[in-house]
Amino acid sequence: MSHKKQIPLKDHVVELACPAHGGLIREMADRYGIPESDMLDLSASLNPLGSPFDHPSGGLDLDDVMERAAQRFAQYPDNRYLEYRSAAVNFLGNGLSVDNIVPGNGSCEIIRLVAEAVLERGDIVLIPHPTFAEYEQQCKVAGADVRYIKQEEVMGLSDEILESAKLLFVCNPNNPSGKLRKREDLLDLARRCELNHTLLFVDEAFIELADDPSQSIADMVDDNDHLFILRSLTKDFAIPGVRIGFGVASKRMAEALNTSRLSWNLGSIPEEIGVALMNMEGGCNSPYLVQSREAIKKDREYLIERISRIRKFIPIDTTINYILVDISNSSFDSTELTERLASHGVLIRDCSSFPFMGKDYVRIAVRPKEETDRLSRAIGKVVVEKARESARSDLICMLESGDAKPQGPNTDCPYYPCHHFPGQDCTFCFCPFYKCEDERTGGKWVDRSSGGKVWSCEDCVVVHQKDVVEKILNELSGEGQMDDKLKKAWTKVVEPLL
Amino acid sequence: MSHKKQIPLKDHVVELACPAHGGLIREMADRYGIPESDMLDLSASLNPLGSPFDHPSGGLDLDDVMERAAQRFAQYPDNRYLEYRSAAVNFLGNGLSVDNIVPGNGSCEIIRLVAEAVLERGDIVLIPHPTFAEYEQQCKVAGADVRYIKQEEVMGLSDEILESAKLLFVCNPNNPSGKLRKREDLLDLARRCELNHTLLFVDEAFIELADDPSQSIADMVDDNDHLFILRSLTKDFAIPGVRIGFGVASKRMAEALNTSRLSWNLGSIPEEIGVALMNMEGGCNSPYLVQSREAIKKDREYLIERISRIRKFIPIDTTINYILVDISNSSFDSTELTERLASHGVLIRDCSSFPFMGKDYVRIAVRPKEETDRLSRAIGKVVVEKARESARSDLICMLESGDAKPQGPNTDCPYYPCHHFPGQDCTFCFCPFYKCEDERTGGKWVDRSSGGKVWSCEDCVVVHQKDVVEKILNELSGEGQMDDKLKKAWTKVVEPLL
Repeated sequence: MSHKKQIPLKDHVVELACPAHGGLIREMADRYGIPESDMLDLSASLNPLGSPFDHPSGGLDLDDVMERAAQRFAQYPDNRYLEYRSAAVNFLGNGLSVDNIVPGNGSCEIIRLVAEAVLERGDIVLIPHPTFAEYEQQCKVAGADVRYIKQEEVMGLSDEILESAKLLFVCNPNNPSGKLRKREDLLDLARRCELNHTLLFVDEAFIELADDPSQSIADMVDDNDHLFILRSLTKDFAIPGVRIGFGVASKRMAEALNTSRLSWNLGSIPEEIGVALMNMEGGCNSPYLVQSREAIKKDREYLIERISRIRKFIPIDTTINYILVDISNSSFDSTELTERLASHGVLIRDCSSFPFMGKDYVRIAVRPKEETDRLSRAIGKVVVEKARESARSDLICMLESGDAKPQGPNTDCPYYPCHHFPGQDCTFCFCPFYKCEDERTGGKWVDRSSGGKVWSCEDCVVVHQKDVVEKILNELSGEGQMDDKLKKAWTKVVEPLL
Repeated sequence: MSHKKQIPLKDHVVELACPAHGGLIREMADRYGIPESDMLDLSASLNPLGSPFDHPSGGLDLDDVMERAAQRFAQYPDNRYLEYRSAAVNFLGNGLSVDNIVPGNGSCEIIRLVAEAVLERGDIVLIPHPTFAEYEQQCKVAGADVRYIKQEEVMGLSDEILESAKLLFVCNPNNPSGKLRKREDLLDLARRCELNHTLLFVDEAFIELADDPSQSIADMVDDNDHLFILRSLTKDFAIPGVRIGFGVASKRMAEALNTSRLSWNLGSIPEEIGVALMNMEGGCNSPYLVQSREAIKKDREYLIERISRIRKFIPIDTTINYILVDISNSSFDSTELTERLASHGVLIRDCSSFPFMGKDYVRIAVRPKEETDRLSRAIGKVVVEKARESARSDLICMLESGDAKPQGPNTDCPYYPCHHFPGQDCTFCFCPFYKCEDERTGGKWVDRSSGGKVWSCEDCVVVHQKDVVEKILNELSGEGQMDDKLKKAWTKVVEPLL
């Protein structure tokens, strides 16, 4: 028994681990010694338009809202949160009333509220993987028996399985895959859950940013006590620092959940901000959100095009403001890629923390072109960095083996012959002298498509000729520091050829 | 089975009721048609100095803090909350570290977190009554078996009883009684709880405003996994709209609770505000809090003096910024008094919502003199209002009985003879013509000790003479509207005597 077991908390609480999340700007800035303001965060998937307080089509004055909120610091919030709930009704615009709304301190609180209101220890919860880690976490706090199913199994769940479960989570659009389920499918599922007395929890946290928000089924709660919808303002309005969301349920469900939630779960500031945001003219179809969806489509196309250019990075089809990228065939695993990019100040989401995803995927937020360009450059840098490290370590291995000899042409490589002459020797696939910046080699500075300059050695043939490779290897095989030997090889072997 | 039972939530969640709280300014303003800004709230017990943002000894600039927070809206909060926890360490100043601190979205979230981390359905929880209603509420969400004990039984709990319980709550100083337990007693209790494997939850939400904050035992958590301390910033800094508090526990307990709390339970605004407040020079002994305690002592003395003047209102000894008032012998019950005062724009706390308190007590916040004066005037008004209504209804009863006759002197009354002549007739203890504002009666406007003027009929003897009473009763016994009859009685009986 570990010492942890002795503390007076429930076993399943003691055994919990913190779920991993994106958006760790401060933590990563500390770890890599980069100022927070220089970090580019593509690990959290926020509206690329930024918040409506900073955007012309938002038409909101943050100072006004903050001042109103500050005037209410000395009062307890009215814990009925009627204005907030009424704003949520306006935002949804689907015929529901304040009696259907449960305010929440961010979407995680709503997930926890439902989990603790529904689940006893040992109750079965069905979660289709891969998906958001908080469902499992909050259900485990409640001591539930979490069972993962595959995403593609959701619609075919038997009555028997549905009936055995107290709760089924569906994230729509799904995080991290970005897949959007159809309204008609979800309505069918909701009807079957009702018949089997299983609560269907549909997480629509991202739906306002999806290509087709009309797939929401939030309007259908009134006649179905077994349907609960989660909405979040975090992503829509790019305000994860504020913590606001709400649940949508039948009046009876909402009443019971409003009774069992914390009396004052929202402070006056998040409440005022939520009211201002959700009361924007047009609600889910405000000019700001319509423009957001348009921007996402355009920026996403650009991101996918940039990612597709990277060898063995495969962007997965998506309908939303993030893309999942399959890197299983690349030389990176998701953790290494994420960490290397972070060291260059660019955060993407390592999906290894999503259950069942292994280290094959990363999730990248759709952002304005210039941020995507910065990502492209950073990926370029880490690809080169890794290849160079590998080449160098392969070279050292070869030298240490005492059997250093030219490797000849690598005709299996799809880029062969990248230096444009037949029979090119590929031993120095990544040149140990890179970047020499000596134009006598044939190398030159070229414009990057994503901006800036890069040293291209495409036209250098020097270190790809068998006899030159032999001489360089000979120099590098001697005693001494590698850097010294490289300098010597340059002077003795390369320089005379230029 | 009620329809509520059919919703897919746990029975004990469906059966919950919202706990009653003070501070319902908006709700009461709506109900009584009084502008919120005109309401005086003595139902929530906040630092009478107001927030340090508004007070010279606070030395904090709210605009700065809000601006810093607003700059972080677009980022997820760093969910380790290291700055906040470090500020809490500074605030406590008792040798603990960030590893002992659990940040909370107000104190209720912390109570719930501990309840759900400790309790399975049916686990026994001991709560000494009367006390804060949220302990019971949050434990009931977790399905616990809540057992109330008396406050005076706490120190004498047997090992057997302690061992049977998972959790024991102690509120110090207690809400609503204002009693402060001694550190040595609590340390003894903590040691006994540890031996019996019972978690002792000490709620020190008000302790910085208590006469002697050194009774805190927060410094003792490190060697005792069975001790948990709750601290709140709401009361100290008069900012109930912000929602910030924290828990203090052993490192092992705090780590497990930090893992099981919501990932982002504090938004960037409450976090920044909390950091600014808790980093004030001197922590719990900052000039602002020292001045606050001095102000509370002075203002409390004044409040007690004012309340003591009211017949049959008995203030109970307290050590904090609120007093409990026993009104069991007055003509009011706590609900009626609270509602009548609310209709005059003054909110006090009806303690009938505290378990086991019946309708015998109200709780009143210690506030600056001018607010206490407004309370005094309002109580004066409702006392007169109620007496007048009673007298009128007694009169109507007597008239309706057909046996209306002078009642003679009420020599049992401690105020007899209040009109300074022996044999005064007390039938019209409250004059049906009040306030006639006719100085020919002997009545006159006098200065109130608490400010303003009041019509005094102390020197009027007209309606206290037996023959006059007889004539008036005769006029009032006839047919017609009471108001018309009163006018007629004035004209026919009183006017000729002036």
